[in-house]
Amino acid sequence: MGRTSDARNKILEAAATLLEQRGYSALGVAEICSTAGVPKGSFYYFFESKQALALTVIDEHWAAQRQQWVELLGSDLDPLRRLRDLFEATEEVQRTGQQKAGVVTGCLFGNLALELSTQADEIRGRLQEIFDAQIDLIEQVVVEAKERGQAGPSVDARDAARSIVAQIEGRALLAKLLNDPAQLEALWRNCLDLLQVPAQERSALS
Amino acid sequence: MGRTSDARNKILEAAATLLEQRGYSALGVAEICSTAGVPKGSFYYFFESKQALALTVIDEHWAAQRQQWVELLGSDLDPLRRLRDLFEATEEVQRTGQQKAGVVTGCLFGNLALELSTQADEIRGRLQEIFDAQIDLIEQVVVEAKERGQAGPSVDARDAARSIVAQIEGRALLAKLLNDPAQLEALWRNCLDLLQVPAQERSALS
Repeated sequence: MGRTSDARNKILEAAATLLEQRGYSALGVAEICSTAGVPKGSFYYFFESKQALALTVIDEHWAAQRQQWVELLGSDLDPLRRLRDLFEATEEVQRTGQQKAGVVTGCLFGNLALELSTQADEIRGRLQEIFDAQIDLIEQVVVEAKERGQAGPSVDARDAARSIVAQIEGRALLAKLLNDPAQLEALWRNCLDLLQVPAQERSALS
Repeated sequence: MGRTSDARNKILEAAATLLEQRGYSALGVAEICSTAGVPKGSFYYFFESKQALALTVIDEHWAAQRQQWVELLGSDLDPLRRLRDLFEATEEVQRTGQQKAGVVTGCLFGNLALELSTQADEIRGRLQEIFDAQIDLIEQVVVEAKERGQAGPSVDARDAARSIVAQIEGRALLAKLLNDPAQLEALWRNCLDLLQVPAQERSALS
């Protein structure tokens, strides 16, 4: 029993690394198993298909990321500082990934959204839920920032949250393309602009 | 001679459609040829490899898009209106694509950047040049906007141009994920915020 769940974990770990580095279509079950050091027969004992495995990788990745987002965005710091913490953590994840793998792999969800949205409905549905949840989490903080006068009064909290998530994805794309985590440094300035943070609030935060 | 260049065009057209809809790794030369209605032998007469074909598709796509960007961003309208024209044209391209194919395929360059940056150096190099050229074109307009007092004095033109390109890519990702070109509508508001356009300029533009 211990041995079988160990094989499952090895498959998941290999799949997570390979999916981040090479995407979905370029991967085969045989390669995942050989990277995991697990016989191919085991694969189908744990997972029905490559897609089922990818969904599990996505769910586990989101479970961990969600926990980090909830901690950072739900802390008792002031709302804008919580957002800054999120951006710094996002950059740090890419920096650590680059140190480990030699390359910036970007955002797993963004990578798969662009690769698979037009061809794998179940994965696409899951990614829609995840992006929606990210937008929800940020929206709550934007609402608080507005209540405290830290964001412009005409800012729509939902739309601003969607813009911030889009900016994270766009900056992650540039970071991956240029293999340069520093592309994410601008997220904080971008967020201050997208939320129309008043000048006096900005100087208080700098 | 007429017939052979016709075959080349058919291959390029099929490859452009398939690359936009399915990405690079999921495609094989056999499928491209069968979609193009061209024997597989012809393929290698015109292209050394699938990667060589992809580079040609990228170059042709950028030649057409670059021409549109230069026309829109180099017009004699006021700088911010030129940027708005660019965003509207970008949304229109996705809307037309959706009407034709039933799905929003997003930005070809963004799709390939996320799929291939960690594994195909030549494609990645070409995409870096294209994104750099896009940032250059937008930067020139931001410089003009600043000169006319339409953008905030502390805005760094290069960095703002990069942020706008990132926002386009992030919004294109959401548009593809949700199969909804309207996700790109926010680009204009986002741009006004990212450029810190003063209130009186905004009301003059609305």
